[in-house]
Amino acid sequence: MRILHTADWHIGKQLAGFDLLDVQRRSFAKLRQVAKDNQVDAMIIAGDVYDRSLASERVVGTVNKMLRTLNLDDKLPLLVISGNHDSGPRLATGHEWFKATGLHVNTTIAGAFQPVTIGDTQFFLLPYFEPRQAQVYFEDDSLRRIGDAVTRTVHAMEELFAPDKHHVLVSHFFVAGSSHVGENGGASETSVSVGGLDAVPVSAFDAFDYVALGHLHNRNAIQNDHIQYAGSLVKYDVSETNMLKGCYILDTETMTREFVQIPQTPEFRHVTDSFAHIMDPDRDLGVAPDDFVQFTLTDTEIIPDLMNRLRARYPHCTGVDRQTQVNLDQEMHAQIQDLDPMALLTDFYPEATGAPLSAGSRQWAEATLQEVRGAE
Amino acid sequence: MRILHTADWHIGKQLAGFDLLDVQRRSFAKLRQVAKDNQVDAMIIAGDVYDRSLASERVVGTVNKMLRTLNLDDKLPLLVISGNHDSGPRLATGHEWFKATGLHVNTTIAGAFQPVTIGDTQFFLLPYFEPRQAQVYFEDDSLRRIGDAVTRTVHAMEELFAPDKHHVLVSHFFVAGSSHVGENGGASETSVSVGGLDAVPVSAFDAFDYVALGHLHNRNAIQNDHIQYAGSLVKYDVSETNMLKGCYILDTETMTREFVQIPQTPEFRHVTDSFAHIMDPDRDLGVAPDDFVQFTLTDTEIIPDLMNRLRARYPHCTGVDRQTQVNLDQEMHAQIQDLDPMALLTDFYPEATGAPLSAGSRQWAEATLQEVRGAE
Repeated sequence: MRILHTADWHIGKQLAGFDLLDVQRRSFAKLRQVAKDNQVDAMIIAGDVYDRSLASERVVGTVNKMLRTLNLDDKLPLLVISGNHDSGPRLATGHEWFKATGLHVNTTIAGAFQPVTIGDTQFFLLPYFEPRQAQVYFEDDSLRRIGDAVTRTVHAMEELFAPDKHHVLVSHFFVAGSSHVGENGGASETSVSVGGLDAVPVSAFDAFDYVALGHLHNRNAIQNDHIQYAGSLVKYDVSETNMLKGCYILDTETMTREFVQIPQTPEFRHVTDSFAHIMDPDRDLGVAPDDFVQFTLTDTEIIPDLMNRLRARYPHCTGVDRQTQVNLDQEMHAQIQDLDPMALLTDFYPEATGAPLSAGSRQWAEATLQEVRGAE
Repeated sequence: MRILHTADWHIGKQLAGFDLLDVQRRSFAKLRQVAKDNQVDAMIIAGDVYDRSLASERVVGTVNKMLRTLNLDDKLPLLVISGNHDSGPRLATGHEWFKATGLHVNTTIAGAFQPVTIGDTQFFLLPYFEPRQAQVYFEDDSLRRIGDAVTRTVHAMEELFAPDKHHVLVSHFFVAGSSHVGENGGASETSVSVGGLDAVPVSAFDAFDYVALGHLHNRNAIQNDHIQYAGSLVKYDVSETNMLKGCYILDTETMTREFVQIPQTPEFRHVTDSFAHIMDPDRDLGVAPDDFVQFTLTDTEIIPDLMNRLRARYPHCTGVDRQTQVNLDQEMHAQIQDLDPMALLTDFYPEATGAPLSAGSRQWAEATLQEVRGAE
């Protein structure tokens, strides 16, 4: 049996004020085609269907249409959980009726103990939850860490395991050992705490043949032969610009999975270069006119009216920052505290910009420092 | 066949900051019992299920549970439309699946042309809409008035009439000739314009055997043998305190209906009396400790810390105002314009308070007027 595993659609998300609904609709259409081409038997959507708890009417209409298309038009069973971005009660609306056509939506801990059997596999749908919800559900105040809460939940699930079936968990958490860093650096999901209290240990999932995760947008965040993040449907952060987006096709007989790339249109790119190069009409930076693009400038000078000039040439410019080469460790931090401000600047400036402090800049800095000290 | 007709649940509505969810749940439970006791074959909910387009998760959960209880637990077919307080796209979530169990939710003009046949009757579900939506749907810019738009819609419905069935329209509009005034005065639905452009003429509904309306909270707002407002489930305004709330049971063979009262707990009362009487512990004003109560004081004096003192005795006091006996007509208005301010006050004061202007008050008013004139 083949199961498509996707997650983190974040329908309704905006990028630097740009509406991504059309991008998301196009990626969804490709995802639908992947499901058809691979003749999958069901689709897992592992949380964060919506980007916000309170979505606009337009976004609600879009999600409703997506689920209708897959489930009612294409007759595809769906296994859906709520992520930390979804509103459980809102996403749950109608779920009692959806089951009749194989659309399984679960947003509660209680619902995680009603496994869905399709073919040779039992699916357990465990939505994102907070430890206090587990404390209430299990009437156990000791479940203060999400790792303990998930471990307890999984133990209770094991009692429901049908011995002649495979067992797949669908969930939406930060798993310990996952990497937050995108393939080109930067955080892909800013709202989780790294490691420690907010992470679920890998060992919590030992009982399952496959764990279909959502939450981290980097599909490679964890390297494990039976635990897989799907990654987000679309690139949502500059740290994701070099990632390949898509979905997984899981074969439940072998419990192996294959990644299928889904390129987005327009693309979201990140370019590091000088302002002169970026604005040079004869230079090909590989950025199409409609692409979303974030720039990191190698320049050190002040560039007046920067964003307007960038957007005149790149209408979907999502942001701009400057390249810095600062790399502090704790030892350096201690040394720095003892330095006089002028000495600090003399060291810092070339490190940050790659060029020494000019005589004019030095004079201006010394005068300013004196002025500040005089005012104390 | 017996059909229960209710409307204007406004789930999530607050009254002067008081949460009405428990009141609404209790009235809902009684409504459910009325449906059982009368063995009705279906229930009409004629719009304004929600009080707000953006309801809280708690309110969404409450409405979802109500619909589930009636339709899935009690196996009762439901005919639901969106009112002006509902968000169409949100209320529509899941409607494609709901049909399978006889829960019919329509929030669009297009859906109004998919009548639902139950037993001997065809039901047409016409939600609240704005004229511009009809202009788009019919591609006809001349539909600038809601009356024209509804008339056009009903004509198109007539072509779908099954000749061997009765025809019932479920809708949510202000019908011309309806009274906005509650049984004890005051507006029961403040957001509609009275008469004129925003009203639907009674003649628009000639083709139907029965028109089950929502929108106005006064079930007696229109007196017509085949057009009926259900009235709101609960009292939501001081103007509604003397109304009987409940629902109608329609007999589709005779197209006659019977009102069934549903008393709410706690009650919402309106008391006009002096502050001394209201605070007198030995006097029975017929207000239970938990009742919501609005006061109209007959007193004219300033009463310090009024609301706190009232709420100390009546915790659910929703508001307080003063009795005035002013009654202006146009002729009086013209006379007043010619009057000197002091003469105006001398006339107005006893009219508004029932007592003449005292010598002290007169002196104070004259001094103040002089001061104001001096400042000009």
